[in-house]
Amino acid sequence: MMSDLEIAQRSNMKPISEVASLIGLSDDDYELYGKYKAKVSLDVLDKFHDRPLGKYIDVTAITPTPLGEGKTVTTIGLAMGLNAIGKKSIVCIRQPSLGPVFGIKGGAAGGGYSQVIPMEDFNLHLTGDTHAVSLAHNLLAAFIDNHLHHGNELNINPFTISWPRVVDVSDRALRKIVLGLGGKENGVPRESGFDISVASEVMAILALTTDLSDIRKRLGRIVIGYNKKKQPVTAEDLKCAGSMAVLMKDAIKPNLLQTLENTPCLVHAGPFANIAHGNSSILADQIALRLTDYVVTESGFGADCGMEKFMDIKCRYSGLKPNCVVMVCSIRALKMHSGKYKVVPGKPLDPGLAQEDIEAITQGSENLIKQIENARYFGIPVVVAINAFTSDTPKEIEAVRKISIENGAFDAVISEVWAKGGEGGKDLAQAVARACDNGGDFQFLYPLDAPIKDKIHAIATKIYGADGVVYESVAEKKIKLFTEMGWDTLPICMAKTHLSLSHDPKLLGRPRDYKLPIRDIRPSIGAGFLYPLCGEMRTMPGLPSKPAGNAVDFDEDGNVVGLF
Amino acid sequence: MMSDLEIAQRSNMKPISEVASLIGLSDDDYELYGKYKAKVSLDVLDKFHDRPLGKYIDVTAITPTPLGEGKTVTTIGLAMGLNAIGKKSIVCIRQPSLGPVFGIKGGAAGGGYSQVIPMEDFNLHLTGDTHAVSLAHNLLAAFIDNHLHHGNELNINPFTISWPRVVDVSDRALRKIVLGLGGKENGVPRESGFDISVASEVMAILALTTDLSDIRKRLGRIVIGYNKKKQPVTAEDLKCAGSMAVLMKDAIKPNLLQTLENTPCLVHAGPFANIAHGNSSILADQIALRLTDYVVTESGFGADCGMEKFMDIKCRYSGLKPNCVVMVCSIRALKMHSGKYKVVPGKPLDPGLAQEDIEAITQGSENLIKQIENARYFGIPVVVAINAFTSDTPKEIEAVRKISIENGAFDAVISEVWAKGGEGGKDLAQAVARACDNGGDFQFLYPLDAPIKDKIHAIATKIYGADGVVYESVAEKKIKLFTEMGWDTLPICMAKTHLSLSHDPKLLGRPRDYKLPIRDIRPSIGAGFLYPLCGEMRTMPGLPSKPAGNAVDFDEDGNVVGLF
Repeated sequence: MMSDLEIAQRSNMKPISEVASLIGLSDDDYELYGKYKAKVSLDVLDKFHDRPLGKYIDVTAITPTPLGEGKTVTTIGLAMGLNAIGKKSIVCIRQPSLGPVFGIKGGAAGGGYSQVIPMEDFNLHLTGDTHAVSLAHNLLAAFIDNHLHHGNELNINPFTISWPRVVDVSDRALRKIVLGLGGKENGVPRESGFDISVASEVMAILALTTDLSDIRKRLGRIVIGYNKKKQPVTAEDLKCAGSMAVLMKDAIKPNLLQTLENTPCLVHAGPFANIAHGNSSILADQIALRLTDYVVTESGFGADCGMEKFMDIKCRYSGLKPNCVVMVCSIRALKMHSGKYKVVPGKPLDPGLAQEDIEAITQGSENLIKQIENARYFGIPVVVAINAFTSDTPKEIEAVRKISIENGAFDAVISEVWAKGGEGGKDLAQAVARACDNGGDFQFLYPLDAPIKDKIHAIATKIYGADGVVYESVAEKKIKLFTEMGWDTLPICMAKTHLSLSHDPKLLGRPRDYKLPIRDIRPSIGAGFLYPLCGEMRTMPGLPSKPAGNAVDFDEDGNVVGLF
Repeated sequence: MMSDLEIAQRSNMKPISEVASLIGLSDDDYELYGKYKAKVSLDVLDKFHDRPLGKYIDVTAITPTPLGEGKTVTTIGLAMGLNAIGKKSIVCIRQPSLGPVFGIKGGAAGGGYSQVIPMEDFNLHLTGDTHAVSLAHNLLAAFIDNHLHHGNELNINPFTISWPRVVDVSDRALRKIVLGLGGKENGVPRESGFDISVASEVMAILALTTDLSDIRKRLGRIVIGYNKKKQPVTAEDLKCAGSMAVLMKDAIKPNLLQTLENTPCLVHAGPFANIAHGNSSILADQIALRLTDYVVTESGFGADCGMEKFMDIKCRYSGLKPNCVVMVCSIRALKMHSGKYKVVPGKPLDPGLAQEDIEAITQGSENLIKQIENARYFGIPVVVAINAFTSDTPKEIEAVRKISIENGAFDAVISEVWAKGGEGGKDLAQAVARACDNGGDFQFLYPLDAPIKDKIHAIATKIYGADGVVYESVAEKKIKLFTEMGWDTLPICMAKTHLSLSHDPKLLGRPRDYKLPIRDIRPSIGAGFLYPLCGEMRTMPGLPSKPAGNAVDFDEDGNVVGLF
């Protein structure tokens, strides 16, 4: 089989203006960025505001193996499958970070015959939105240190500054730095560090904003630390929010690309899925829902992580109601969840994973069952998509189908979109369309006006299956402080490992009889959520000893090679 | 009068596709980036390779006041003036850094009725080229520290690493940092720092490259430091150059914009004018010269700085020969050069500068005379452009004209492009067109195969008017080392203050009887030059106490305000 990049480069790509006209956009509704990318004007929302909303589908997954479950592949393939059965669809996904592209993970354009193209542009700069995020973020950081340097009129307590700098490169050496060295001319020395750009609160704001005046206000509300009277200091106080908003004036427009089968694809925003909410933008979904009958989007990590945040944060700010959840699972992952097999990145796969093992699947399905239950808490029908591997046997697939349906799934079908594109997603598309017609009764997990601890408790006990929550003293203090500040009415964005339903990545399947520890809790006031930390969260990846970037180059004809 | 931004926002901007078709470009020759920006395909060079080259004009200046001489305004206005007299022209200028836009200097799109538009896009992200430079640069930095972290197979001596990181923000606190702190997982602690992105060698490479395979090779040749055997370590050795080149695949294409009068404007690359060569890209000029009769470009700082590098570095790598030099000077600057008046940024102007003072002008003209002489060393006719201020008197203008022509200028004319646009540049355009017809006999200042010290001597004595050169011991050692490496055949890129013909910014007019001190000399092997340091060079600006960014925002209608 060809590599993903070869498949992408041999595809029958249409000029993006043709793709745009397929969904009723005229020349004035978008701006071209090259022949195969466009930015869609936000005016489209006004223009089509009286059209009915399409059906809204969120693709999520069981607790994934460290290699992933093929969620993006399924998301793209489902949209193509819907088109293949005559249901017009648009797919809305996140823009990947450049860091992992050259590091350990590679790109995020899907794979096989289920990809977004042009794959190179998708995985590289796209139209520069992440760069705009980085610049806006770093401008605020410079304004902070400049403020300290020029006399600190706002009386900022330097030890409370929680605004790092960002760079869209996996660069562990920047995690912890001391800056401002070299004498008085270089500012005030202090400890700080860099996150990867997608971990920036500005990225979370981009994903959650609903228009230009909203993003301006959100940027102004960013809290960078506290003054010596323990009052919050904001980007507005530093007179930086206007510049930041102006830097985001084009980034706020969703990017239109296409799949290998020319399905329209809106790519917009890519916030971190732990310290942020891990979902593509509200604006892309809002636009797509006015332009087509079915909108397929994806949320990061497993259903306990990205899907919960999709429902309780993204849908809360957008006012949109999902119609169906697609739960991606692989037979390989279910076997891993049994505890019998290990999946370790960079090491050869345990050959047992490619052998029929109904018992392991049955045991491991505890995770799947819990994640179906999690989606059902929101009142939405769940279709399980079994992401097909060549080693899967008919008996194994049938076992997963049966378990799914017995445990609350609307349906469970095999998805062969990686190998076959939209054709391999027709069954899934049929099931999803039926689930959407079946209707649901969307509800949030918790009311916003509940106390912070009640909201955390609801997520911990209902979604993670914990017995309760324990708070370290710093977390207790912060909850008291944030409540005094009036931030207790914000939704909660749990920062938790995605490799377990619990806080401990070693606990596979469906962990029971444990209490969820909350180490600390932090505010993203601009984005509009509080994020409790369950353990250490890495916000800056490192590069492996042989980074993916070693292989990226041009061939003799000037074609890109080595991206994956 | 309206602000620059108001003039720009009220202009009669044409869709960039119309501007492109004016210079014979068809749809396939460029890619749109929104309606008012386009990237021109490098294939245009092949397509039009048998067309004759247009006339090639470099706009430079006398030693400027700290407020600048209006060189960009004149460059843009001259191109509009040429069109106004029926001579088809294209203007080629640098992309500004985002740092100063929000800091002390503001934008760089020209001013008054001589501007490039859309002014907001020009001064903000444009099409993301500088972001691509930053990313490619920082990816290499991460690869270096990652290499140290994973065992340092290349045996790099960490104390010799000269590759900083970059960010396109004025951020003094990042000048000197210690990175890799926080334990073994965060890499190897060491001292380092950040430059502003436009100081990156990758930016110099972008400005000097001639095609995709050339930029790939240049990136590979970047020397980041030495191994413990004192051999150079390159980006190629670190297996990063392929990824860097792929990150630059779109940045390599020049950006097409327009002036207020719809004159085509290629904006491409913006390397630093001291540690790099301070000229826009070779590729933009090469393309423009096949598309039109007159190409007006600009080099950074005064004629001793950017123009010398234009001739000895840029034209050496491009193979192009200039036909005319335009020497911009203001009466204000000539008065300053007399030593009688001071110009201090941020302070009110000395009222004497607005009074007629022929004596001061005559004294200060020593600088103008020397800079005319400098252009004449290259065998090119010089037209002096007196950038008009309302306080200039007819007698003063006549004095400058007379001095110019008596001292070797082909002509000297008043330029009123700031106030009147192309109409105010007609006289200048006529003079320039005649100078181009007059012909010149272009020659370099020094041969490449001369020893390093001979090349430095030629620049110091001929261009700067020094008696000789003195080398600190570290510079002596480097010259020996670089000669052993075989780097002695590269051109020289002097890193010197632009505020004096000498190394000392306090020496105005035409400094004599001094020796030029060379503190150190550094290699930009990828870009293809050595840069001797005459004093400390700042490669990262700081923000002032009231940064320009404080005023940048949207108004109620969503228009950008506060950019200047």
